[in-house]
Amino acid sequence: MNDRTMWIFVLLALSLGPAPQTLCAQGALEDLRVNPERIELRIQELSQFGGTSNGGVDRVAFSDADVQAREYIISLMREAGLAVRIDAAGNIIGRREGRGADRPSILFGSHIDAVPHGGKYDGALGVIAAIECAQVLHEHEVATRHPLEVIVFSDEEGGLVGSRAIIGTLTPEALDVVSHSGKSVRDGIRFIGGDPDRLEDARRRPDDIKAFIELHIEQGAILNSRGTDIGVVEGIVGINWWDVTIEGDANHAGTTPMDQRKDALLAAAHMIIAVNRVVTEVPGRQVGTVGRIRAEPGAPNVIPGRVVMSLELRDLSAEKIQSLFATIESEAERIAGESGTRVSFTPIHATSVPAPTDPRMRQIIAAAAEGLGLTFQLMPSGAGHDAQDMARITPTGMIFVPSVGGISHSPEEYTRPGDMANGANVLLHSILKIDEGALD
Amino acid sequence: MNDRTMWIFVLLALSLGPAPQTLCAQGALEDLRVNPERIELRIQELSQFGGTSNGGVDRVAFSDADVQAREYIISLMREAGLAVRIDAAGNIIGRREGRGADRPSILFGSHIDAVPHGGKYDGALGVIAAIECAQVLHEHEVATRHPLEVIVFSDEEGGLVGSRAIIGTLTPEALDVVSHSGKSVRDGIRFIGGDPDRLEDARRRPDDIKAFIELHIEQGAILNSRGTDIGVVEGIVGINWWDVTIEGDANHAGTTPMDQRKDALLAAAHMIIAVNRVVTEVPGRQVGTVGRIRAEPGAPNVIPGRVVMSLELRDLSAEKIQSLFATIESEAERIAGESGTRVSFTPIHATSVPAPTDPRMRQIIAAAAEGLGLTFQLMPSGAGHDAQDMARITPTGMIFVPSVGGISHSPEEYTRPGDMANGANVLLHSILKIDEGALD
Repeated sequence: MNDRTMWIFVLLALSLGPAPQTLCAQGALEDLRVNPERIELRIQELSQFGGTSNGGVDRVAFSDADVQAREYIISLMREAGLAVRIDAAGNIIGRREGRGADRPSILFGSHIDAVPHGGKYDGALGVIAAIECAQVLHEHEVATRHPLEVIVFSDEEGGLVGSRAIIGTLTPEALDVVSHSGKSVRDGIRFIGGDPDRLEDARRRPDDIKAFIELHIEQGAILNSRGTDIGVVEGIVGINWWDVTIEGDANHAGTTPMDQRKDALLAAAHMIIAVNRVVTEVPGRQVGTVGRIRAEPGAPNVIPGRVVMSLELRDLSAEKIQSLFATIESEAERIAGESGTRVSFTPIHATSVPAPTDPRMRQIIAAAAEGLGLTFQLMPSGAGHDAQDMARITPTGMIFVPSVGGISHSPEEYTRPGDMANGANVLLHSILKIDEGALD
Repeated sequence: MNDRTMWIFVLLALSLGPAPQTLCAQGALEDLRVNPERIELRIQELSQFGGTSNGGVDRVAFSDADVQAREYIISLMREAGLAVRIDAAGNIIGRREGRGADRPSILFGSHIDAVPHGGKYDGALGVIAAIECAQVLHEHEVATRHPLEVIVFSDEEGGLVGSRAIIGTLTPEALDVVSHSGKSVRDGIRFIGGDPDRLEDARRRPDDIKAFIELHIEQGAILNSRGTDIGVVEGIVGINWWDVTIEGDANHAGTTPMDQRKDALLAAAHMIIAVNRVVTEVPGRQVGTVGRIRAEPGAPNVIPGRVVMSLELRDLSAEKIQSLFATIESEAERIAGESGTRVSFTPIHATSVPAPTDPRMRQIIAAAAEGLGLTFQLMPSGAGHDAQDMARITPTGMIFVPSVGGISHSPEEYTRPGDMANGANVLLHSILKIDEGALD
């Protein structure tokens, strides 16, 4: 829609209908669309900060590239008419006032920090699209009932630092962690303009926030392989990690007959297959992964005496994770008995609990997608997101768009401009629906 | 037997029989026995060089401890009446002349260098027992027909350096290898009194050697678990090594559904189990081992995209190794097809061919054991030994004695004094049988 068409609508609305809630007429609001070219252009511009020759980005939180990208983002926010501030946790917040004086804010956004050797869409799309929504509303002089806040969370990839500060769960220990930038999280927050000594100031009260909504690339291949436009996220899966230790007897590979071995790696192989079988033999979208393995002593001519490997289980239901783990434990007991080894499990701290999205938010996103003529499906988020923190204090929703080939955290990460625009339009109309009272 | 008894035999023989072949009478020779206490004492004394607080030894070839231990061994050789020389490869050779002027020598011995954090019996027993045999013959003034040579091979654990020089297969590249001592093999040989520029001088002509025989601890648990006194070694197994590479797709463990994965570690687990099944499902004493494994990128939350692991196969028959490998290759093809991965094998240089012992030598050793009232059994040597080189130029035999628990290359390595004495007595009487013409 161009500006001239818009004014026709506005004049039409003013002449025909009751006093409109916004400067736009209702019909005009429904027809609002983001600018696909501008999103694509800004995604490419943002990727120059920390950009690598192979098309990826090296822009870990608290790096110089991160700081430069944040300055770029702040300039875009100002262009979109947002009042920008940095909170104590280093989150960038661009605020647009609403018509109502004391209404809570609708928050939306994502992050711009990246994993080492990452891609240009993870996080970035959610931020650029959020600014685009604000800019479209600004350009069309749409006055919303609620204040809107575009948020860029600090250090998402390093452990959801910004969103944990907002919900009040960022511990002093987390501040001591040395991030990929080489700086501690504490020093990093200071480096990007926050104040780690006053983190309490970054905390938000639930009654201060109407809702939170995040657009993100799927990072998996479900939407892309099925040709679905939009993923309506049911929740962010819980993640449990264990170290699995298998102890046998290290021995000379030449002098120890096959029937006298207690080969820890052979038992580990049976465990890896058992994990896969247990996770896949029940219905559902749970996943289980052994990603790391170490055999000791690790020489070609020595039977491994000890293997330590990782076990990760993810699902939307904590109960299901526990039930899968119980089955894996009993499989381990059987394998240990049959192989003469000992198998033990050590839970690892990195565990996160499942964070379901708000069912009303799912309906709002689905309705927005439907209104835009887009196909959509419910799906879990297998990856962690700031939305999982926000879900603990406010109605939260997440929108996914297809990742080509399901590739993520890689320079090959790619999402088509059309899919980015679809996601941004769903974000825009979800915000408008919430503003219009869909949550009330 | 004490010296007085001995003299009675000798006088008896002189008064009764024809001119004896040796200073001893035949009956006296059969009754010759090593001194078990002296063997045990010397094993303990030798273990002081590079001895560690946990009862093991750190005495890698070309270390100061190696040099000190060699000086100790040379002193024992001289005490046993041997004329000592160091050849160009650093081998210590203690020679005792025979009665015949131009007869070839009977060689016997082993090595005294150890693996890092090794035990006190591996190699050491073969050397101490060889000197004991010479000393018993010296003390009893037994004059053999053939010259006897006690040999201490240099740097056995680093790749059979001394014996390869003797058979002429020590390459210039092998001299460049940096040994555990930190010195190159070339510098190491110089350090222990050899001359790496004149290695050809160390080479022995086949017609210069009557036979070679080596006593060694089994390093496996076969003799110990069956309660057998003596192992008559059928040969040293051939060893083939491969690097096995499994390539799948590295992907996000949270966002990639189970049915869309190409998990290289899951495929590797199937390979490890297949190797075990292929090796154990045919009769025989072949062994197959996966001892080393690396999964990339190796993070708990990333599906492994690439696994590299070792494959080792050992058997007395090179044909059997090739046939096992062919079966493993076709298993790999099946697993790759089922898992959507690619599996490839890269042969590794460390391969060694099977070295059967001389059937006559096996009979000589078996007869010696039987004559001593010891139980014995035929068995392969799963570990490599200098005997495998010597077998290429001269009739070679090997004697094994039990390793408690089959433990080797470890401070817990242990062989009982009685078993060491049994092995030394079998060595002594095998030498005497060869000297008496059992090979002719």
